[in-house]
Amino acid sequence: MLVVMKAQATEEQIKAVCDHIEFLGYRPHPMPGAQRTAIGITGNQGEANRGNLEEMPGVAEVIKVSKPYKLASRDVKEEDTVIRFAGTDATIGGGSLAVVAGPCSIESREQAFAIAEQVAAAGAQFFRGGAYKPRTSPYAFQGLGLDALKIMAEIRDRLGLRIITEAIDNETLDLVAEWADVVQIGARNMQNFSLLKHAGRLRMPVLLKRGMSATLDEFLMAAEYIMSEGNYEVILCERGVRTFADHTRNTLDLSIVPAVQKLSHLPILVDPSHGTGKRDKVLPMARGAVAVGADGVLVEVHHQPEKALSDGPQSIYPEQFAQMVNEIEQIAPIVNRKLHRGIRVETAAK
Amino acid sequence: MLVVMKAQATEEQIKAVCDHIEFLGYRPHPMPGAQRTAIGITGNQGEANRGNLEEMPGVAEVIKVSKPYKLASRDVKEEDTVIRFAGTDATIGGGSLAVVAGPCSIESREQAFAIAEQVAAAGAQFFRGGAYKPRTSPYAFQGLGLDALKIMAEIRDRLGLRIITEAIDNETLDLVAEWADVVQIGARNMQNFSLLKHAGRLRMPVLLKRGMSATLDEFLMAAEYIMSEGNYEVILCERGVRTFADHTRNTLDLSIVPAVQKLSHLPILVDPSHGTGKRDKVLPMARGAVAVGADGVLVEVHHQPEKALSDGPQSIYPEQFAQMVNEIEQIAPIVNRKLHRGIRVETAAK
Amino acid sequence: MLVVMKAQATEEQIKAVCDHIEFLGYRPHPMPGAQRTAIGITGNQGEANRGNLEEMPGVAEVIKVSKPYKLASRDVKEEDTVIRFAGTDATIGGGSLAVVAGPCSIESREQAFAIAEQVAAAGAQFFRGGAYKPRTSPYAFQGLGLDALKIMAEIRDRLGLRIITEAIDNETLDLVAEWADVVQIGARNMQNFSLLKHAGRLRMPVLLKRGMSATLDEFLMAAEYIMSEGNYEVILCERGVRTFADHTRNTLDLSIVPAVQKLSHLPILVDPSHGTGKRDKVLPMARGAVAVGADGVLVEVHHQPEKALSDGPQSIYPEQFAQMVNEIEQIAPIVNRKLHRGIRVETAAK
Amino acid sequence: MLVVMKAQATEEQIKAVCDHIEFLGYRPHPMPGAQRTAIGITGNQGEANRGNLEEMPGVAEVIKVSKPYKLASRDVKEEDTVIRFAGTDATIGGGSLAVVAGPCSIESREQAFAIAEQVAAAGAQFFRGGAYKPRTSPYAFQGLGLDALKIMAEIRDRLGLRIITEAIDNETLDLVAEWADVVQIGARNMQNFSLLKHAGRLRMPVLLKRGMSATLDEFLMAAEYIMSEGNYEVILCERGVRTFADHTRNTLDLSIVPAVQKLSHLPILVDPSHGTGKRDKVLPMARGAVAVGADGVLVEVHHQPEKALSDGPQSIYPEQFAQMVNEIEQIAPIVNRKLHRGIRVETAAK
Repeated sequence: MLVVMKAQATEEQIKAVCDHIEFLGYRPHPMPGAQRTAIGITGNQGEANRGNLEEMPGVAEVIKVSKPYKLASRDVKEEDTVIRFAGTDATIGGGSLAVVAGPCSIESREQAFAIAEQVAAAGAQFFRGGAYKPRTSPYAFQGLGLDALKIMAEIRDRLGLRIITEAIDNETLDLVAEWADVVQIGARNMQNFSLLKHAGRLRMPVLLKRGMSATLDEFLMAAEYIMSEGNYEVILCERGVRTFADHTRNTLDLSIVPAVQKLSHLPILVDPSHGTGKRDKVLPMARGAVAVGADGVLVEVHHQPEKALSDGPQSIYPEQFAQMVNEIEQIAPIVNRKLHRGIRVETAAK
Repeated sequence: MLVVMKAQATEEQIKAVCDHIEFLGYRPHPMPGAQRTAIGITGNQGEANRGNLEEMPGVAEVIKVSKPYKLASRDVKEEDTVIRFAGTDATIGGGSLAVVAGPCSIESREQAFAIAEQVAAAGAQFFRGGAYKPRTSPYAFQGLGLDALKIMAEIRDRLGLRIITEAIDNETLDLVAEWADVVQIGARNMQNFSLLKHAGRLRMPVLLKRGMSATLDEFLMAAEYIMSEGNYEVILCERGVRTFADHTRNTLDLSIVPAVQKLSHLPILVDPSHGTGKRDKVLPMARGAVAVGADGVLVEVHHQPEKALSDGPQSIYPEQFAQMVNEIEQIAPIVNRKLHRGIRVETAAK
Repeated sequence: MLVVMKAQATEEQIKAVCDHIEFLGYRPHPMPGAQRTAIGITGNQGEANRGNLEEMPGVAEVIKVSKPYKLASRDVKEEDTVIRFAGTDATIGGGSLAVVAGPCSIESREQAFAIAEQVAAAGAQFFRGGAYKPRTSPYAFQGLGLDALKIMAEIRDRLGLRIITEAIDNETLDLVAEWADVVQIGARNMQNFSLLKHAGRLRMPVLLKRGMSATLDEFLMAAEYIMSEGNYEVILCERGVRTFADHTRNTLDLSIVPAVQKLSHLPILVDPSHGTGKRDKVLPMARGAVAVGADGVLVEVHHQPEKALSDGPQSIYPEQFAQMVNEIEQIAPIVNRKLHRGIRVETAAK
Repeated sequence: MLVVMKAQATEEQIKAVCDHIEFLGYRPHPMPGAQRTAIGITGNQGEANRGNLEEMPGVAEVIKVSKPYKLASRDVKEEDTVIRFAGTDATIGGGSLAVVAGPCSIESREQAFAIAEQVAAAGAQFFRGGAYKPRTSPYAFQGLGLDALKIMAEIRDRLGLRIITEAIDNETLDLVAEWADVVQIGARNMQNFSLLKHAGRLRMPVLLKRGMSATLDEFLMAAEYIMSEGNYEVILCERGVRTFADHTRNTLDLSIVPAVQKLSHLPILVDPSHGTGKRDKVLPMARGAVAVGADGVLVEVHHQPEKALSDGPQSIYPEQFAQMVNEIEQIAPIVNRKLHRGIRVETAAK
């Protein structure tokens, strides 16, 4: 259920409605829009009791949300969600084209900086690198952990790039939240509901990757898990799904971009590196992602991919990355996006 | 196996090599390239006997083709295949962006012309319309048959658009070959090997749609079936594959475009109409198709889709089609393609 | 639409109703049942005009069939369809467990007889062997054609086994119909609607294999294509579908057996050879097929699988076949089936 | 790598080898077999240094394990793993057919006992019921938590049934381990590697469900994660995978049973309830599961499924469960299994 406030509703009126929702035993989620505020209601099993919400001052209407996801739905918030990063001009969503780049794993300070400097120079605003790696084999390299987080924090301080890295459980979530700018939840954890709820208690952006066999509804419901705990800064990311096709590691499902945008206000990125698993498919699919209307791309870049400790075959070279940025920059205006090369840092703050 | 001729090899030398291949009991497939001619050899079970091919005048080398497909492989022909249409400047492949448009089914002369005129005006070079419809239900509209072929022939004569339409069996193949410019083989018939062989005996272009669960190898092997009979003018077409995902009717697998282009010299189009099954996904995915490097798009257009006898929900309106042409025209140069709006007819000939 | 006749309706009344259906412009399909006859009506686009069918003598009721398939539906015919073979006690459907066995391809008279004798001795009632092979590669062995049909006819004459073999186009359909007892339509042709219609004009059983990515509805609609032309003797066959799973060649979907049986009166067999592609999975999955309630199994047997011209790795040895028959014979009574070992031939006739 | 000890090797020799493995920097996993002990070695990146292992007293040979999974592989342990439950005659694996039954969720003490009494009477040895439910929607019933665990502990005490229930994160894992006999890790967490590692530190059986799109290798690697931490009591469970097929909620892939049994010594159960999502498919598929050779079945039973808080449509009635036990009991001896109805409790101990 959703309470739509009048355009001229006051802060006090909004607060009074939220209080009444809590009095009814539910949880209010005020979502300010350009025109007016909507207040999502969660916590009800079945239909919520409307109390006298409809008669309260400032209330325009009370409407039922038909989708299983509520806070993620455009019914609740019509305008696109834009994620901003304090102290910078970087955004995800809202007409800008975000470029996230970096190695699969942080392997050393030297490796991380070598790559970070090149992707920053080529136009990335965000740096990604694995500190905690979910690997299929228990015997494979599992990441440098806290050391990797510290290296990436140094990259932010030195190069301005904002940091995106994955948390793999509730313990690492707290660490990542402390050191990074965006917490990533990986495809294998898209339905780790415990982790989603913990991420919902953060007050920072969460990048949520689509599970390998997640439907659109399940993807949005996973976002809803995070939002239902009060964290509305969710960034979706398509990274390929599992099919019978064997010419790529996964099948990158670009059609989910317009499908998400129709149903949800959340921004959506595309990861053509995991989505294809092959270096020579990354650039074409990055172009395709921007052309279908994605809010940005997330790619793996390595200066020595043949020596990478993980995912070398899908990592592109820095010079390919530079070419990719050039190409998607040209496509961006055709889909009403603008690529702001690099990041302008206003303050040194995180 | 493959005989690569020297650049300066004469016609006589090429013919002599072909004769010797036949003498060995195989079938020669001479494929002229910009630099030199290669001669594919088929008809062998297991490794072919090389006879004294290597010593013949004009022969540069004899090489083994490791892929199961030979004639479709870049090993045999390095340059892109370009399909030309006599009497026009239209091409498929080779740097031009082909635009194929029309209704799912030809329903009447009025309907067909209403749509054809609008897509021609908006920039299409090819008109597609179903005469023989492979329908899931035996009780559904099965197409107007020969009448539809005649209507489309009239569209070619009046508007210059070249005609692509589907044949569903060996009988309709002959009819379609008589009246159309390109014979389409549908997804459900991609492994109808009898039909593929018959299409291979034609000497006109064949548009081969990827089967709903075809791997890349199977797709190229289906093309090989056609080529093995001597028809080298095969146009591939991605139209979505079947997966668990339910937000679109099929999952459009754009990554097959660069995958095909790496392995094969054949042109590849993308059909975002069947690939998504939803009108509002057609434009984004058409843009995506061009951005990944497809040689063109094939879309369903209907002026009254709500009244269409088949596939109305995935047909775009003529004004959407015009917008699509505008958008993909802007993307084309970024991927070294050029959209030549409409068709220039040099003679009235088919 | 469906006309249900009264139990005591006369032949004349049934004929009068059929005539009236034709007069209305549709096609009648009388389907005699144990209690009473139902007459399916096809040929209508949308809802059929009921004329005065409801008032005609002998008519119990006229009901709308809600499924897209009509003649294949249990709504039209409640009792299981049982396929009988003239001159023998063999049946498919109706409580007997059919065992179909033989090599992927007929390779020679010696090979075929060697296998046929062993499978007959071990309990098979039906012999299968490819005469026309749909092969992924145009350069692979395509079958012995008419010679293979003649060899199999000789097997029938000598050993009594009834013959099932595949037709791959309209031309081979006529030949197979002439020489075999059951015409098989392969998975790749499940939606070759032209072939289905031709098979519908035969008056002999058709074994229809599920397509590699066919849904249950599409599978039953393919059967409906055959039935809509007047041939009601359709045997369905599950042979595995295509998924991401790579431990078997296809994923054998045994749940379709009870799903078919709920919706349709047609018998359904299971092919664990194509369904798994691996010899050591055939026996377990054959047992599983019988346990879920299939009307029989169809397996590939070869006495020298390592020398087989096709599908050797999935062919079981004759001694494994004998073990399989023993095992499924024990499971049969648990699911109210009985395996009648071998075939009793009453006359020499086909 | 794997050290195979001689049959007559002493405990001291085994310990000396383990010590040397630790000295080399790896982790030893001694696995006693009927004939002799094998010692798995993990902890190496790439090939392990063999030190002088081969010359140590009692060592028969040192062999390389080629599979990515080692401890889960039959290479390391040839005999089937049998999971025993202290104080009872119940086993999972090793020729007995385990029957696990209960409601999707524990909804109340009354509901749980009503079902438990009936499934115990009908022959189940294990009771399953959700305490912590991983639900697609954050607004759906999430389980009774600790209260449910206590109810199930009471069922164990009163009825003897051993308890299997799911843990959804590291926190609930400790609780479940305290109160239940087997910790279940659900399909959505099959690649929650953090949770797998924690489960590996338990010393009690873990039931690991196959992920919705997990390959066989990934499934065994998930088991390996648990085993690599020293917990070798892993029970695998097939519960259906995600495909295009829509006649069941998931596609139950019974072929994985013989595939697992060939490669691994771990027992494998089948869950036809989640595997089909439909009540009327549960019995056929349970029969199929036993016929292919599964070590048991896990089914959802509810006395009032129409009132169930979760998964009602796939829960069978207690009388259907009794029929299922009868049917699979008859199939069991055909595949060398024996169903021991109910549980014999020797002591009151957990």
